[in-house]
Amino acid sequence: MSEVVLVTPLNEVNRFIVDCLKAVGTKEEYAKIFAENLVTADYRGHYSHGLNRLEMYISVILNKSCNPNAEPAVERETVATALVNGNNGLGSVVGKFCMDLAIRKAKDVGISMVTAYGSNHFGIAGIYSLQAMKQNCVGICFTNTSPVMLPTRGRQSALGTNPLSFGAGNAHDQVVLDMATTTVAVGKLEIKKRKGESIPKGWACDNDGNVTSDPSVGMKSGKLLPLGGEEENGGYKGYGLSLLVDVMSGIFSGSNYGTNVPMFGGVETSNLGQTFIAINPEVFAPGFQDRLSDLLGLVRNTEPKDKTKPVLVPGDPERIHMAQVDSQGGLRYIQDQRISCAKLAEKLKIQPMKSFELK
Amino acid sequence: MSEVVLVTPLNEVNRFIVDCLKAVGTKEEYAKIFAENLVTADYRGHYSHGLNRLEMYISVILNKSCNPNAEPAVERETVATALVNGNNGLGSVVGKFCMDLAIRKAKDVGISMVTAYGSNHFGIAGIYSLQAMKQNCVGICFTNTSPVMLPTRGRQSALGTNPLSFGAGNAHDQVVLDMATTTVAVGKLEIKKRKGESIPKGWACDNDGNVTSDPSVGMKSGKLLPLGGEEENGGYKGYGLSLLVDVMSGIFSGSNYGTNVPMFGGVETSNLGQTFIAINPEVFAPGFQDRLSDLLGLVRNTEPKDKTKPVLVPGDPERIHMAQVDSQGGLRYIQDQRISCAKLAEKLKIQPMKSFELK
Repeated sequence: MSEVVLVTPLNEVNRFIVDCLKAVGTKEEYAKIFAENLVTADYRGHYSHGLNRLEMYISVILNKSCNPNAEPAVERETVATALVNGNNGLGSVVGKFCMDLAIRKAKDVGISMVTAYGSNHFGIAGIYSLQAMKQNCVGICFTNTSPVMLPTRGRQSALGTNPLSFGAGNAHDQVVLDMATTTVAVGKLEIKKRKGESIPKGWACDNDGNVTSDPSVGMKSGKLLPLGGEEENGGYKGYGLSLLVDVMSGIFSGSNYGTNVPMFGGVETSNLGQTFIAINPEVFAPGFQDRLSDLLGLVRNTEPKDKTKPVLVPGDPERIHMAQVDSQGGLRYIQDQRISCAKLAEKLKIQPMKSFELK
Repeated sequence: MSEVVLVTPLNEVNRFIVDCLKAVGTKEEYAKIFAENLVTADYRGHYSHGLNRLEMYISVILNKSCNPNAEPAVERETVATALVNGNNGLGSVVGKFCMDLAIRKAKDVGISMVTAYGSNHFGIAGIYSLQAMKQNCVGICFTNTSPVMLPTRGRQSALGTNPLSFGAGNAHDQVVLDMATTTVAVGKLEIKKRKGESIPKGWACDNDGNVTSDPSVGMKSGKLLPLGGEEENGGYKGYGLSLLVDVMSGIFSGSNYGTNVPMFGGVETSNLGQTFIAINPEVFAPGFQDRLSDLLGLVRNTEPKDKTKPVLVPGDPERIHMAQVDSQGGLRYIQDQRISCAKLAEKLKIQPMKSFELK
């Protein structure tokens, strides 16, 4: 008996998420923005930030720590900047609003920065860079997150995984860097634990701040190491980048920051800070896309150590994943995920998510 | 017999560098900007980028691959941006010019970006962030450099150590991140070699792209690993950051990029790309400095793993170093450095650098 492999078309995942959000009182326009965000994460292969987080988002809507219909509002602006109050709305709605504004301003004056406070978790940071790229801008984005990173020399977490994204290029050729400033996010520890494998030294620490190779210990402590790992391997740089992200997002916007950011999923309002920068390459040296493609090409053409593993640029793994999803006609979720979606459909009294057998 | 320790006052180092530059034909205004740059590097403890590089700069002036009197010129601009032709002048002169312009624009519209091509090595990136901070702006800076970094999975160098700097805060309390996007710069390998120590895995590779623990092997190959080290430790993020820096500097400006950047010190024109961003916090949420100090304080107050090593924020080690220099009345250079300065003085027929015995 061969195992049955199920796939769910992207538009069905989208429909399911929209229905879930509407069932908990979200207006259609915002439910659609939210669904697009989660589906894009899964489509790009960032499963930790897609359907996997749907129940968490629904729980913070139900416990009223996030208002899914709140409209973001501009509080102050110049021709090149804006300060936005997210009004505790959906992070994906706040993010889209802010990057839209940033793009309009960058089209006018070349570069712009829009920062929001009163926001919530906004999904993958990369989606906002992609939003800018669709409008021929370079997009940069920062968000602070709940404190789970040990600063170098510390034994308590003081900063978040504080991701940043950077995207440049057009549909033909592009680079999209979307990274946490910790070595890895918690999801990678979960995977290692499930496989019964140890983790490399440089990922996480035990409760006393000593490096561990046991994923369970790292998950229990909630103490991740910054990119670079320990001090002698440059971990102070990853820690510095995490601090940079918090200054860019939390400190400019006036949101929560550092240890003041509550854990995701609780009853407390998150009040996250997020910053969106758009840059219009047309105001600088002509020929931006040509030079970019040339640079990406020369890096990809670097002789690889192992001929079966070519050098990739950030965004290439996602492109490969999307092509695979397209060829198989949809997303393949693990069984746990399908079961929890089925339960959610029942609970919210909506049509379950339909899947099809992969042929 | 106790060893005699020599110190050189900052203003004497400055005088010596100015005289050297003038001796090779540099006009006084630019010689002073250049000297200020190198002295600041040493004062902050970044000895690799200070007096240590003076002979290299002089050699590229003498071999005419850099024109020390060239004036940077604005080619295009908007209220928030500018494209500058460095005209192959001194990097420190181009950098100061660009950040000055960026600050003026940021004061007007909140954020600005100035990018230069036709530039040369500009010293420590942090100095331009500090320049912005003195004018109450946040300063960000990027430069591309000669290719000595292996992209993840590659066995050839394709990108530079491509540093970035980020600085925020006032004289009272500040954060200054000034980092290469490799785990370490070549200078750290030299120090390990001199001490006869091995290097941690994650710093450098041999000629085939395999990680080495022998500093000599890493120096010979010129193949440094990106921040994070190998792929499983997040090295692809450091590599992605290096690419980000090259896009921000080389691709926006139209300078050399990637493997096209020649090695420093040769006869070829460098044509480096550098980008300077200034942000005026006053156009965002009021109270920026207070929040920043609060965040820096809460991170510094994180319980340390080892009570004798408190948690620092980027810029603190430099502050500690500067206080030490002040208390001892000047800089302590290694004997090699003093000897080469003495030879240089003789060669250029200028007054040698005077030092004093530390009491």
